[in-house]
Amino acid sequence: MKNFLDLADFSREEVLDLIALARRLETHPEPQALARKILGLVFFNPSLRTLSSFQVAMMKLGGSSFVITPGQGTWQLETKLGAVMNGAAAEHVREGLPVLASYCDALGIRAFAEGKDLHYDLAETNFRAMASVVDKPLINLESAINHPCQSLADWKTMEEIGVPQRAKFVLSWVTHPRVTPIAVPSATVHMAAHRGMEVVVLRPEGFALPPEIMDKARAAAAAAGGSVRETSQRDEALAGAHVIYAKEWGSTTHYGDTAGDAALRANLADWCVRDDWFANTHADCKFMHCLPVRRNVAVADEVLDGSRSIVQREAHNRLPAQMAVLHRLLAR
Amino acid sequence: MKNFLDLADFSREEVLDLIALARRLETHPEPQALARKILGLVFFNPSLRTLSSFQVAMMKLGGSSFVITPGQGTWQLETKLGAVMNGAAAEHVREGLPVLASYCDALGIRAFAEGKDLHYDLAETNFRAMASVVDKPLINLESAINHPCQSLADWKTMEEIGVPQRAKFVLSWVTHPRVTPIAVPSATVHMAAHRGMEVVVLRPEGFALPPEIMDKARAAAAAAGGSVRETSQRDEALAGAHVIYAKEWGSTTHYGDTAGDAALRANLADWCVRDDWFANTHADCKFMHCLPVRRNVAVADEVLDGSRSIVQREAHNRLPAQMAVLHRLLAR
Amino acid sequence: MKNFLDLADFSREEVLDLIALARRLETHPEPQALARKILGLVFFNPSLRTLSSFQVAMMKLGGSSFVITPGQGTWQLETKLGAVMNGAAAEHVREGLPVLASYCDALGIRAFAEGKDLHYDLAETNFRAMASVVDKPLINLESAINHPCQSLADWKTMEEIGVPQRAKFVLSWVTHPRVTPIAVPSATVHMAAHRGMEVVVLRPEGFALPPEIMDKARAAAAAAGGSVRETSQRDEALAGAHVIYAKEWGSTTHYGDTAGDAALRANLADWCVRDDWFANTHADCKFMHCLPVRRNVAVADEVLDGSRSIVQREAHNRLPAQMAVLHRLLAR
Repeated sequence: MKNFLDLADFSREEVLDLIALARRLETHPEPQALARKILGLVFFNPSLRTLSSFQVAMMKLGGSSFVITPGQGTWQLETKLGAVMNGAAAEHVREGLPVLASYCDALGIRAFAEGKDLHYDLAETNFRAMASVVDKPLINLESAINHPCQSLADWKTMEEIGVPQRAKFVLSWVTHPRVTPIAVPSATVHMAAHRGMEVVVLRPEGFALPPEIMDKARAAAAAAGGSVRETSQRDEALAGAHVIYAKEWGSTTHYGDTAGDAALRANLADWCVRDDWFANTHADCKFMHCLPVRRNVAVADEVLDGSRSIVQREAHNRLPAQMAVLHRLLAR
Repeated sequence: MKNFLDLADFSREEVLDLIALARRLETHPEPQALARKILGLVFFNPSLRTLSSFQVAMMKLGGSSFVITPGQGTWQLETKLGAVMNGAAAEHVREGLPVLASYCDALGIRAFAEGKDLHYDLAETNFRAMASVVDKPLINLESAINHPCQSLADWKTMEEIGVPQRAKFVLSWVTHPRVTPIAVPSATVHMAAHRGMEVVVLRPEGFALPPEIMDKARAAAAAAGGSVRETSQRDEALAGAHVIYAKEWGSTTHYGDTAGDAALRANLADWCVRDDWFANTHADCKFMHCLPVRRNVAVADEVLDGSRSIVQREAHNRLPAQMAVLHRLLAR
Repeated sequence: MKNFLDLADFSREEVLDLIALARRLETHPEPQALARKILGLVFFNPSLRTLSSFQVAMMKLGGSSFVITPGQGTWQLETKLGAVMNGAAAEHVREGLPVLASYCDALGIRAFAEGKDLHYDLAETNFRAMASVVDKPLINLESAINHPCQSLADWKTMEEIGVPQRAKFVLSWVTHPRVTPIAVPSATVHMAAHRGMEVVVLRPEGFALPPEIMDKARAAAAAAGGSVRETSQRDEALAGAHVIYAKEWGSTTHYGDTAGDAALRANLADWCVRDDWFANTHADCKFMHCLPVRRNVAVADEVLDGSRSIVQREAHNRLPAQMAVLHRLLAR
C-alpha cells in the first residue's frame, strides 16, 4: 500500500483484508511493528478521534508521531497555486508539506472543504495540491469529500456486529445549526455500496448528494451486487432498515450560500433521529453516526443512550482500523 | 487503586505510602514500569505544570500519553445532561470521553468550576458527569473544588523539608485581578488537616471557604489529631506559623457575581505576601504556593525570590508524586 | 557542550565537527543515544520546522519531548523583572521555566523580539532573563537576534552542495506585508562570515542591520579570512554571487514604528526575488531562504519552484543539525 486516500482505491477483498489485519492487531498486539517509524499529522481543522487515535495507533505499534496545527502553534498555510501571499497565510503548502514529509515516514493530512464552490471541492482541488508535493505515504484524515478512515472503521463495525452484506443501509440527513461538509456522507454512501448493501440516501429537498458522489457509489454497488438510491420520503426509506446512519451536511443546491442553506433548513428541525424513527425498521436495526454529534438537535438522547446505538464501537474501531492502515503502509 | 480523584479517598497511611513510592521512583527509576501503557489527558482549562509533568511522568515510566484540549485543536465539549446542543459545543462528553477512554489505559481530566452556582460546583456536578462515563482509571487534574495531585506534591514537599506533623499551617487568601476558583484552597485545607497539622484559614470577610469544605477538613483533622479554624485577623493567624501557604480565590458570598467580588477586593490590595508577614512566624517558616502566581500582586518578589520560598520544590514534586499515582493505577 | 545559544560561541572547527556529527547520524543512526532523555520545548511564538524537527530529532535518538505554548493551552508568561502582574500574564518565567527545566534534561525556548526598542532586543534582554533561571542545557529556538539552529542547518547545506568557502554570499532583504524580526538576518550574516565567505548584505535604505550585528559579523569574517560589507545597489551586489539568501526584516531606522516602516516599504515591492536576479550571478548560483516565505511577495514562484532553490534542503537539514546539537548536549 502506497497511500490511504480513498476506500475506492481498494477492492472489497482488500478492504476485508485490512479489517482482518485490524482484528489480528487487536488480539495479537505487535508492539514493535513500527519501531523507529514516525508519523506526521497535519490538522487544518479540529479533531478529537482522529487526533487521538492516530497518535495512539503509533504508540501501540511502537512508533511515534507529531502534530502540526496550522493556525494554532503554527501559522496558517496557503494552498492555492500562484497565490500572491500578502494575506493571513505565512507559508505555502508547497514549502511546508515537503519539509514535514522529509522529517517522517508517513504523513496524515486533514483539510476540510472550502465550502464555496462545489466543483472545486468535488475535485479535491486543495487535497490534490497537497498530495502532489508529498513524497511519503500519505493518509487522508478527512478531505473535502472523503473520510476513508471513518469508512474503514464503520465497515469493520458492521462486520463485527453481523450486519448482513445485503442489509438495508439508510444514510439519513439530520439537521445541524450550521452548514457542515459532505465528506462523511460522500464516503459513507460509497462505503456501504462497496460493501454490497441496499443503500438508501434519505434527505430533504435541496440536500441531495452531488451526482458525482452518487454515481461513484452506484458503480461500487454494481460491482458488489448491491444498490444505491435516494429519496426524501422518510417512512418508505426507514421501513425494514438494518442500519440508520445519521449525518449532518450542507445544502448542495445552495452550496456556499449560508443564508440560502439556513432558509432551507429552517423548517427541518424534525430531521432529528428519535426512537420513533425505528418503528418500522428491522427489529435489530442499529444506529450509526461518525461523531461528533449534537445531541437533541441531530439525534435525541434516547437514541444515543439507547441499545441500538453503536456509535461508541464505530469510534473505538478508528484505532484498530488505522493501526492496520499504518501497518500496511510502514511495516517491513 | 482504581482512580485518583480526591486525597480524602486515601487514609493518612495510604498517602504516606504513595509519597514513599514517589521517593523510591526518584532514587530507583523504573523506566519500563508502564511500558505500552497510554495515558489520555483532557484539558478543558489551561495548564503548565500538570500538562508537562504528566507527560514526563509517563515518559519516565516507559509509557506514552496524548493531549486533547477542547476549544484548541478540538472543538468544545458539552457537559450538561439533556442539553439541546445548538450552541458552541459540537460534541457531548457522553460521546467524547468514553471514546478517548477506549483508546488509553487511564484518563486524566482537568475541568475547572463553572463559577456561577456554588452548590452546583461544590457537588462537582460536571466532573461527576464526566467520571460516570469513563470506565478506565481516572485522574483528577483539577476539578471544581479539588486538586489532589497538587495536594499530594505539597504533602510530599512538607515531609521532605521536615515540617513537623503538628506544625501551624496557615492557608492565606491573597489577592488577584480576577475571580479564581476555590479548588486549590479547598484541597489544601483538607490536605493539611489530613496530615494532622494545626490549620488556620486566613481570609478577609466575604472569602470564607464554604461550610462543606471546612467541615470536610475538620473531619480529617479530627481523625489525624490536628485542628482547623478560620480567621480574618492576620497578625494572630501568622504568629508562630510554620508554613504560610498563599492562594487566590473568589468570594464565596458573591459567588458568580463578578462585580460584587471586584467591589469586595477593591480594598484588599495589601493581601499580598511580603517579607513582613514573617515577622512573628516560626523562625523557619516556609512559604508555599501552588503556582501560577502573579508577582507583586499576590506575592512580592522578595518572598518568591527569598530563602523561605519552597514553591519550586512543590512544583517539581508534581512529577514524582504523579509518577507514584500512575504506577499504582497502571503497573502490574 | 553546555548550551546551544549562538553559533558565535563555537569555533569554525567546532561548527564543522557538529556538521560532521550531523552527517554521521544521517548515515549511522543511533536510535538509543538519548534513551530516557527528555527535551522540553517552549514556544512563545509560532513554528513549523522547529516545532516538528526537534520532536522528531528526539524520537530518532530514542528520547522524548514535550511542548509548552504560552498563550495556547498554557497561559501567557511574563518576562520583565519586577513586573506588577495585574495584566494578561498569569505566571512569570522566573517560576515557570525552572519548573519545566526540573522536569526535563534540556530545554529549548523560542522567544522573538518585542520589536519596540532596538537596544533592548539587541541585548537579548528577554532571552537572557529566561536563560538566567534555567539550570539545564538550553537551546535557542530563535530569540530576538539569533537563530543558531537555522544557521547550523544552512552551513551544513552549503557544505553538502559544495558552495566554496570563499564564495560570494549575498544576504538580500526582500519585502513582506508586515514588520518581521531581525533574528535570521543577524544570525545569517554572522554564519556566512564565520564560514569565511565574501558576504554582502543587500538592503534598501532604512533597513541596514544594526552596527552591533555588522561588527560581530566582521569580527567573525576577520578570523575566518572572509569579508562583510553592505550595499543598497542590487546589480553590483548580485554580480558573481554564489548564493542569494533572501530574508524579510523590519526597518531598523524605524524600529518599533509600524507606520514608519510601512511608509518605507511602500515603494519596495520590487524587492521580490525573481529569475532575473540571477542574470549576472555565478552560473551555479543557489537560492536560499529559511522559510516560511510568502510566495510572489518576497520570492516569486519561478525561483522557489526552480532548480536554483535549495530551501527544502535547508529545511530538511534542521533535523540532522539539531540531532547533532542534542547528541552533544545529552549523550553520555
